[in-house]
Amino acid sequence: MTYCVGMMLEKGIVMMSDTRTNSGVDNISVFRKMFHWSKPGERMMAVMTAGNLATTQAVISRLEERTKAPEDRSIGLFEAPTMFQVATEIGQMLRETIAHRQKANGEAGRRKFTASIILAGQIAGMEPRLFMIYPEGNFIEASYDTPFFQIGETKYGRPILIRGYDRDMSFEDAVKLLMVSFDSTLKANLSVGLPLDMMVIGRDDFAATHERRLTHDDPYFERLSDEWGNALRTAFHSLPPYSFPDT
Amino acid sequence: MTYCVGMMLEKGIVMMSDTRTNSGVDNISVFRKMFHWSKPGERMMAVMTAGNLATTQAVISRLEERTKAPEDRSIGLFEAPTMFQVATEIGQMLRETIAHRQKANGEAGRRKFTASIILAGQIAGMEPRLFMIYPEGNFIEASYDTPFFQIGETKYGRPILIRGYDRDMSFEDAVKLLMVSFDSTLKANLSVGLPLDMMVIGRDDFAATHERRLTHDDPYFERLSDEWGNALRTAFHSLPPYSFPDT
Repeated sequence: MTYCVGMMLEKGIVMMSDTRTNSGVDNISVFRKMFHWSKPGERMMAVMTAGNLATTQAVISRLEERTKAPEDRSIGLFEAPTMFQVATEIGQMLRETIAHRQKANGEAGRRKFTASIILAGQIAGMEPRLFMIYPEGNFIEASYDTPFFQIGETKYGRPILIRGYDRDMSFEDAVKLLMVSFDSTLKANLSVGLPLDMMVIGRDDFAATHERRLTHDDPYFERLSDEWGNALRTAFHSLPPYSFPDT
Repeated sequence: MTYCVGMMLEKGIVMMSDTRTNSGVDNISVFRKMFHWSKPGERMMAVMTAGNLATTQAVISRLEERTKAPEDRSIGLFEAPTMFQVATEIGQMLRETIAHRQKANGEAGRRKFTASIILAGQIAGMEPRLFMIYPEGNFIEASYDTPFFQIGETKYGRPILIRGYDRDMSFEDAVKLLMVSFDSTLKANLSVGLPLDMMVIGRDDFAATHERRLTHDDPYFERLSDEWGNALRTAFHSLPPYSFPDT
């Protein structure tokens, strides 16, 4: 499994992904699920992937190839005039990759080789944009009403995102919020694991404003995990006491 | 979907279930998912159900029939000497009900008509016990290490249970904890809905010590939901601030 979140803020976009892949519970590896491409001053594009690893790696490799030899193709990532075009290209590539495997493996393949992608980025002269791309190749875009996307093991970490999110929050607070959401997920599900990759794309920076890998021994993350447990218990005890109607 | 939790405490067992059933998102009804049978001073048994409504209603109806005409059968719920035997009986009934539908509907039926049950209860002279019964008819029992079971839409409400549970907590605190867990789930998933049914089975009470239905306009639950949002935000802001290594 996997857990990735992309979050749109007034100041830009924050992304976080885990790095665990598993085939069963006894075959666990670390693979990067966050990738980015940039042309300084002109465009920044980043993706996070969830789903079948062979599928997502194939899509990323094909994207890499296109950026390196764009003249061979109709449109490369660096030539697409808008982020919408970039999402269209990646969606098509994802759909084709899955369809190719499905063809080779029959009807069962579609389900087995499925994958989803979160795409974030900005092209000079336009707004930062955040997309969720489905295995079918179609996609939706984040809005004021739905300002963040999750893929993979999304449920454990969702309640705190719903309650903690604020479009005007700082990048630091957004990273903290994502860490709490990931901590809740890590505590509940073995298939999501450290290290975590984190990236901030500041508005009009056209580059990774901040980029980090959080490892097992990260002192801040350890402290956050401990203190969040305590803070939750304190929050719980601060709630009005319940009493049974008949007592 | 459904959300039910059964929780073992030192003082007894606390149970909570929602009442929403849906077939698609446009066909939503209210059905009770919590049922109990007791023989004052001698035994108390309660179940909560998740899964296909026709299956769970059939199981409950058959249990009702057995309690009313136990002489027809080998063992009725009121004759079983231990809670383990009760779990075995209910498990067998659940498996048979699913298998019957499966037989009538072919291979696809097993998946479609599946259901799970949480069973709680106590028989005089023995400890209170809590079981989770699978569609296959087998079951597991709660222990010190795994003191609560969830069925249905379990993920959203799990992190707070993991962090807030304490075996020695009062019934009042346990109900409050379950309400917070349900509130997180209700906020995130339309398929879980009010009203909620709640029951407390006190150790050696052999009856529903407390039993209530929480409706949409319950002032305590409304207040809890509001204050929990605020308390979570306060907890979040009480965490140590994050700062990017390079700033």
